[in-house]
Amino acid sequence: MSPSGMTRVQTMACGSCSNENAFKAMFIWYRNKERGHKTPSEEDLSSCMVNQTPGCPDLSILSFMGAFHGRTMGCLAATHSKAIHKLDVPSFDWPIAPFPRLQYPLEEFSRENAQEEARCLEEVEDLIVKWRQKGRPVAGIVIEPIQAEGGDNHASPDFFKSLRNIARKHGCAFHVDEVQTGGGSTGKMWAHEHWGTDDPADIVSFSKKLLTGGYYHRDEFQADKPYRIFNTWMGDPSKNLILAEVLNVIRRENLLEEVTRSGRALLNGLYDLQAQYPGMLSRARGQGTFCAIDVCDDATRDSILLKARDKGVLLGGCGDRSIRFRPALVFKEYHVHIFLNIFNDVLAQHK
Amino acid sequence: MSPSGMTRVQTMACGSCSNENAFKAMFIWYRNKERGHKTPSEEDLSSCMVNQTPGCPDLSILSFMGAFHGRTMGCLAATHSKAIHKLDVPSFDWPIAPFPRLQYPLEEFSRENAQEEARCLEEVEDLIVKWRQKGRPVAGIVIEPIQAEGGDNHASPDFFKSLRNIARKHGCAFHVDEVQTGGGSTGKMWAHEHWGTDDPADIVSFSKKLLTGGYYHRDEFQADKPYRIFNTWMGDPSKNLILAEVLNVIRRENLLEEVTRSGRALLNGLYDLQAQYPGMLSRARGQGTFCAIDVCDDATRDSILLKARDKGVLLGGCGDRSIRFRPALVFKEYHVHIFLNIFNDVLAQHK
Repeated sequence: MSPSGMTRVQTMACGSCSNENAFKAMFIWYRNKERGHKTPSEEDLSSCMVNQTPGCPDLSILSFMGAFHGRTMGCLAATHSKAIHKLDVPSFDWPIAPFPRLQYPLEEFSRENAQEEARCLEEVEDLIVKWRQKGRPVAGIVIEPIQAEGGDNHASPDFFKSLRNIARKHGCAFHVDEVQTGGGSTGKMWAHEHWGTDDPADIVSFSKKLLTGGYYHRDEFQADKPYRIFNTWMGDPSKNLILAEVLNVIRRENLLEEVTRSGRALLNGLYDLQAQYPGMLSRARGQGTFCAIDVCDDATRDSILLKARDKGVLLGGCGDRSIRFRPALVFKEYHVHIFLNIFNDVLAQHK
Repeated sequence: MSPSGMTRVQTMACGSCSNENAFKAMFIWYRNKERGHKTPSEEDLSSCMVNQTPGCPDLSILSFMGAFHGRTMGCLAATHSKAIHKLDVPSFDWPIAPFPRLQYPLEEFSRENAQEEARCLEEVEDLIVKWRQKGRPVAGIVIEPIQAEGGDNHASPDFFKSLRNIARKHGCAFHVDEVQTGGGSTGKMWAHEHWGTDDPADIVSFSKKLLTGGYYHRDEFQADKPYRIFNTWMGDPSKNLILAEVLNVIRRENLLEEVTRSGRALLNGLYDLQAQYPGMLSRARGQGTFCAIDVCDDATRDSILLKARDKGVLLGGCGDRSIRFRPALVFKEYHVHIFLNIFNDVLAQHK
């Protein structure tokens, strides 16, 4: 299940710790590169003990508006989805690029969407240059393949491949955060597999559906000394055993194909409903069963969530006014039809 | 088992996450106090989304030289034990006070030690004032009851009680990190119980021996809204079940008394050995079985560790040239004598 090009994995206990340590791996990699892989200087070693440069360098991680990468202080500096997560916590002066705001269905707006993506990529390059000039070079770019918490925002394979190239061009690491998207719900083990490239990233982090946290990485992101990336437990071996059995079930029962099939049925059902309730629903979108739809306003959204719950369907919200669908991998096509009937009843009550 | 004055607990998956979230709880508490517990302003909410003040305030946590509080980026900014932990990772400009460097046995040097502690406390107050003037007020002080990773550095109950008073006087929170000391190895469930006060701290974090991570806190450190302190898993209920049984065993078998007894035997044995090998060993110290002794240099220390391992005894190092003892709670007095015999053999080989 390791992502293409990555032969190493570091387990951790949760998604935030996975991303924190992935950030650290990128900083270590970047500084080793700057030092020409030489031994750190006495000044490096003494200054880092008191939080000062050059030992604790002014490096940054470029993230995207709307991103969610976790809640520990490093991750939180790359998170920009909701104020309640960030309010009152000191942060770093790190660059934040716009995430493409696309029109759905993506294939009907490919020209407009390509333009929007080009705008965001240009901004990424500008920020990398600007932060280098400020003396806070970008050591790595972190991005979700689908911005989940931030409202299920998608981008095209071309966008991600161009971003990966921009990272390489500027000597920045490229970290794909699959904490929410990894594990099969997009119809592939990793959402980045939809990009169709053999070299998707330098680091891919995971957690949630994969029961343990951790990150896969390319060889050169292995820290050069033991105990640079470390934790008392670094996850829990029992979770790995359970995960191994989950992976067996996914293979044995062809659950990724199942997800692709039920995801198609779900998305088509959402398209039908947004045609039926055009004042209420819009922007149906998804990959596999990792789907979402927007509601006219947040009050209506929240009321729909409550009414669905009263009929036995647990749905979640994401972004300002989206409903997100996150069924388990065993959610089959006939479940989709049961769900769509109930959802239609709920919507009819709101008409 | 909750520390005196603390009725609430927040579980987390590991020690670093526990400290990160304890720091966040202190920042949230501090800013709510500054806002007079009013609703955050529009400027607070919008600026925090892009990592800027006032939403992401320039607050700091005061920590001590030699401290170890974990490896995520917030914790790491309060960690100052070894360069290898911190090198290459961006940090915060937070104040770092000297931790008392005492002479052992503590009771034989009480006058000199009181002087050294007074020097450090004075420095703490100076730093609090200085960082407030710099515009980076100290929201909280974090300290270990025994600096463990940093070399088993002890301080007196008076030192900690004075520090708690300094924190209160300056409106800073007081966080006692018991990740390594909590759980019984000092002969009490919490090392801070040795201070003999009903009001030891605002927050006490734990992990390691307690099988799950987390922090206890006084009521007012409860975040004012849900999801401000949050994580997908926030620990693992199965660990709490195991911990409940561990606590039963500790009570049923009077393990804390056992630890006190075997700790006394261990420390007396170490005193004898340092009298026998004065050129090699010094500064024997400990509380319960949480003991340590210094070796003349790090090469000798490392060689002793290896030789002991070859005789079936696992010992660890801490600080530059200390050996630390961290036996399990079932380590009884007769184990101490078995150990001391083996240790004596190892030392004799080095003489």
